[in-house]
Amino acid sequence: MPSTGPRTLHLNAFLMNAGHHDAAWRHPRTQPERVTDLRYFQQLAQTAERGLLDSVFLADGLALWGNVRHNALGGFEPLTLLSALAAVTERVGLIATVSTTFNEPFHTARKFASLDHISGGRAGWNIVTSGTVNEARNFGQDEHLEHRLRYERAREFLEVATKLWDSWEDDAILLDRERGVYADTDKVREIDHRGDYFGVRGPLNVPRTPQGYPLLVQAGSSEDGKEFAAQYAEAVFTAQQTLADAQAFYKDLKSRLARYGRTEDQLLVLPGIAPVIGSTEAEARALEQELTDLQVPDYGLAQLSGMLGTDLTGLPLDGPLPDLPEERDINGNKSRFTLVAELARRDGLTLRELIARLGAGRGHRVFAGTPEQLADQLEEWFTQGAADGFNIMPPHLPGGLEDFVDDVVPILQRRGLFRTEYTGRTLREHYGLARPANRLVTAASAPSLATTS
Amino acid sequence: MPSTGPRTLHLNAFLMNAGHHDAAWRHPRTQPERVTDLRYFQQLAQTAERGLLDSVFLADGLALWGNVRHNALGGFEPLTLLSALAAVTERVGLIATVSTTFNEPFHTARKFASLDHISGGRAGWNIVTSGTVNEARNFGQDEHLEHRLRYERAREFLEVATKLWDSWEDDAILLDRERGVYADTDKVREIDHRGDYFGVRGPLNVPRTPQGYPLLVQAGSSEDGKEFAAQYAEAVFTAQQTLADAQAFYKDLKSRLARYGRTEDQLLVLPGIAPVIGSTEAEARALEQELTDLQVPDYGLAQLSGMLGTDLTGLPLDGPLPDLPEERDINGNKSRFTLVAELARRDGLTLRELIARLGAGRGHRVFAGTPEQLADQLEEWFTQGAADGFNIMPPHLPGGLEDFVDDVVPILQRRGLFRTEYTGRTLREHYGLARPANRLVTAASAPSLATTS
Repeated sequence: MPSTGPRTLHLNAFLMNAGHHDAAWRHPRTQPERVTDLRYFQQLAQTAERGLLDSVFLADGLALWGNVRHNALGGFEPLTLLSALAAVTERVGLIATVSTTFNEPFHTARKFASLDHISGGRAGWNIVTSGTVNEARNFGQDEHLEHRLRYERAREFLEVATKLWDSWEDDAILLDRERGVYADTDKVREIDHRGDYFGVRGPLNVPRTPQGYPLLVQAGSSEDGKEFAAQYAEAVFTAQQTLADAQAFYKDLKSRLARYGRTEDQLLVLPGIAPVIGSTEAEARALEQELTDLQVPDYGLAQLSGMLGTDLTGLPLDGPLPDLPEERDINGNKSRFTLVAELARRDGLTLRELIARLGAGRGHRVFAGTPEQLADQLEEWFTQGAADGFNIMPPHLPGGLEDFVDDVVPILQRRGLFRTEYTGRTLREHYGLARPANRLVTAASAPSLATTS
Repeated sequence: MPSTGPRTLHLNAFLMNAGHHDAAWRHPRTQPERVTDLRYFQQLAQTAERGLLDSVFLADGLALWGNVRHNALGGFEPLTLLSALAAVTERVGLIATVSTTFNEPFHTARKFASLDHISGGRAGWNIVTSGTVNEARNFGQDEHLEHRLRYERAREFLEVATKLWDSWEDDAILLDRERGVYADTDKVREIDHRGDYFGVRGPLNVPRTPQGYPLLVQAGSSEDGKEFAAQYAEAVFTAQQTLADAQAFYKDLKSRLARYGRTEDQLLVLPGIAPVIGSTEAEARALEQELTDLQVPDYGLAQLSGMLGTDLTGLPLDGPLPDLPEERDINGNKSRFTLVAELARRDGLTLRELIARLGAGRGHRVFAGTPEQLADQLEEWFTQGAADGFNIMPPHLPGGLEDFVDDVVPILQRRGLFRTEYTGRTLREHYGLARPANRLVTAASAPSLATTS
């Protein structure tokens, strides 16, 4: 049930190998040798659960990320890893990134349904499109799909997936041992989808799940991305550097919901923040500097080249950015391009300074300070119309998450901003979002298996 | 390391919802209300592990199986379920069925690599092709791929998957914090595969796994299937009704290995057996009869129609089988068709009798008797050149697996036929199979990332 108490914030822990800072793996507080060890991620998820966080989240890509010469590769695929974590946690939500570009909706809908059963209703899907040539080349294509077409495909993918999740009514399983009737075939339906991208007959071979649908999450902030979010997403991870930008994004996104017949409380906005926590401000700044000092400039330049769609190799690190293309000519992550370009322009940063600024959060906001100062920042954004909660991106792991859980969460709780116990069992309950109605039940035209086979 | 002790048998527990008997869910010893509860499968896997079994195994299909009106549907997708089970078991192998027909090798190779890391080297892949129209229609196709082409695609799929698993050398990760070098890019390679079915550049975004490759399992016994097994499989699940048939199959399959440069000990043959266990033979037969009495004839007829590629609806249950097509005209499971047709012909069975005979094992051998009698049967096949081990298909679960572990395993151990403790940690070690060499290391032509990017 959606909560009816005072508005409280929602916190997601974004798990990332040795941490979000690109040099985290070189820092003595991290354990990069454990990033292919299930127990390492088990410890992270259990820490998040100890902190009563709403969820943990894994990003994903369908090709080798970045440059493995200089940064720690993980190795776990999100759906398999989160399924394993479901078995060793009780309450925390489990959000996996899966692309709509190189997957089939039957497989994806089924795996999320399976994870939702496995976890007792804690599955979430961060819906992304794949926008890099490196990914396309792992799937038989030399060029990636154009940005607008990726979103067209994503929309049809969601139509199919939601219909598949609805192909079983909640009470379809009868288990009548006496009469030998396992399921009521009047309540199981083919979906018979025939569209531009997919043809899927259904039904799904998984009964309807505890949450009905996994929590639907989205993270693209381009025009296409925002419109897709307004139509489908229930939580949005976003990268915003300033309160004003975050307020504008929040208002913009919420204002788009009405045209899809949705209300503002049906979509939560969670800006990312990479908190560099110290017991004093000086200690936090020293930790931030330690991490910056461990950065490999070549790596930062390669990452920046990718974000800006511009080859920066060989340019002087202490010089300015070269001329950049326009956002409309970027076919990858459009919103990240614009954010980075504006950050450099606004603050007049050299390449080296920009690489340092992006090191901890890849464009997400970085904040170095004490737990009290961090809580102030979160409270300000939360109460000033910029956020419904936050996507917490610890620069170093596991310590950065432990510091947040042990030192920041109690402050938020004392201020009445965060739960002091889990009151729900499912991820939707944590986020205060309703369980979706089954759309096929009311669609009189949907024939059931009883009439078609 | 392959074992050098006396030859012992290998046991796999084939897990199936309420049990393999099609009426198991109606029997009082089963718990069909728990088949979408992770803890149920956790209990089954832990029972198998308590019995020191080599592995547990999940079948799969990409459409709703059979007729949900009369039989228990599970709902878990194998890779997600086995990932969850990896977190709550320590030693038992975890074999997932995944089709090569409607999947992409990059995704499949990656998920198995992830499961192999998650489980510390306990992943196995039962490689199947998808041969039903119902599956094709969930993936945008109105007809399924012809049998021979499915195997062509499967071979290329395996070529790509094994290259992806080899795209990282074992010691590619350096973790040199001092110099900031995470991986040795001389030891990470693009695979640049361009074939008839797939174009995959690679490398995989998962480092090489504890086992190198998951254990490769195969279960098709047609000509195409046997040839595929001889080339790639390390364990084969097969359905054989008689000792003579099993000996012939065993000899045939092993004799095919040499032409792929393989030795007979590189492929283990595990016939399926559905053991109906009682403390006396009479008790076992009574249990078998109880299960038969719970069968729904309509369901059995529908299943049989599917296996025989012939609509049997409306035929008198106490009459004989109608004329059947030839195996060459069957495009689904060719070997199962032939087995069932021969079983009916040999024993002169009516439709009702055939449905009863197939109820417990869907064509796999059914044996009702005491633990001692069952051990005799297993020993006979194992010592008479018919089997290297067995695929145990309990007719009812969880009790049928518990009976096997508690009552049959100790007899096999006393006879020196089965391990008394796990001596290995990985699934390959349990089965006595070597860790595969990395083929790309010796292929001088394979450029590494260091030279290509």
